Amino acid sequence: MAGKNIDKIPEPTLRRLPWYLSNVKLMRERGETYVSSTQISKEINIDASQIAKDLSYVAITGRTRVGYNIDLLIQVLEDFLGFTCIHRAYLFGVGSLGGALLRDTGLKQFGLEIVGAFDVNPELVGTEINGIPIFHTDEAEQRVKESGVNIGVLTVPINIAQEVTDRMVEAGMKAIWNFTPFRIRVPEKIVVQNTSLYAHLAVMFNRLNETIK
Amino acid sequence: MAGKNIDKIPEPTLRRLPWYLSNVKLMRERGETYVSSTQISKEINIDASQIAKDLSYVAITGRTRVGYNIDLLIQVLEDFLGFTCIHRAYLFGVGSLGGALLRDTGLKQFGLEIVGAFDVNPELVGTEINGIPIFHTDEAEQRVKESGVNIGVLTVPINIAQEVTDRMVEAGMKAIWNFTPFRIRVPEKIVVQNTSLYAHLAVMFNRLNETIK
Repeated sequence: MAGKNIDKIPEPTLRRLPWYLSNVKLMRERGETYVSSTQISKEINIDASQIAKDLSYVAITGRTRVGYNIDLLIQVLEDFLGFTCIHRAYLFGVGSLGGALLRDTGLKQFGLEIVGAFDVNPELVGTEINGIPIFHTDEAEQRVKESGVNIGVLTVPINIAQEVTDRMVEAGMKAIWNFTPFRIRVPEKIVVQNTSLYAHLAVMFNRLNETIK
Repeated sequence: MAGKNIDKIPEPTLRRLPWYLSNVKLMRERGETYVSSTQISKEINIDASQIAKDLSYVAITGRTRVGYNIDLLIQVLEDFLGFTCIHRAYLFGVGSLGGALLRDTGLKQFGLEIVGAFDVNPELVGTEINGIPIFHTDEAEQRVKESGVNIGVLTVPINIAQEVTDRMVEAGMKAIWNFTPFRIRVPEKIVVQNTSLYAHLAVMFNRLNETIK
């Protein structure tokens, strides 16, 4: 029962923090040196009190009437969100979306470095995309264990999504970024982040149909 | 006050439907002809009653003890989610992520066809990626109006995200799929779907830190 009892930060807060970060960066480009939650609120249409509450999680406090020091706020947010240190990851499944992610250099700017990829396609194994080597899936377990990499990006077809997940967990992965529309099952303690582009598409199509009918 | 008063489908339900779809497709591959909410529940760890309730929105009813006809369920879900008809879209900003999305052939399978892209980079304008032509941003308004395309994919740098959004709306776009970490402002009635990969990364890094510290 020792140690500090730090509240787990709510997911909605975590999702809003990158919005604040990107807006505050723009304000700095415009020459601002201090920024208040009221100013951020005007830019992005979220209650100033909500913003102040969210920012209290990252252990930064604004000064009355002056607000937050803008450089400090950016640094604290970037550190807190994990964008300033590099997290290494392996990608599983170099299909259309997997290949696209290997080519997206933006991920590294936000702290994710894909150091290798796995696939079974003999035309891909042994090649590289964007400097990232592609290995045969049979090598995955050993490479994961030797490298200490603990994040896996899942972009395989849905019919093998669970099987590949099980192998990732067995090899020692602690977090899985799941881009498949399949709901994978994992043991407790393994972090799963679902980013199904196609589920987002479905939401958008449905809302669009409502507005134009 | 005329017309049917259909309840708006809740977003959590909309996000779960693609999970059911992908699981039910796998069951069909395994040779099943009927599937019950209880069976789906076992596969994906969601309450059977929740699944039955979600499926009631797509106007399909299962038969007691037998469940849903699997072919019919798949067809109804695909239609409902908008995956069976093609929605045309323009992409704005052919950077690293934008280029990656142009190369992702998976989007078309789920109903989104990107018919063209816009950028200001003279090295890109006039070329194509994956058969999709890239035009100068100055042509956007006219091309959008002439084509009747009403979905825009936003992958520009954050410092011009709002400006490009305003131009998209003015040209007649009804839905914007926003991949930037910037919270764009739009008039009422315009649909915005936010898919910030980097915000998802932040959530994953944070959860991972909690489990391994």
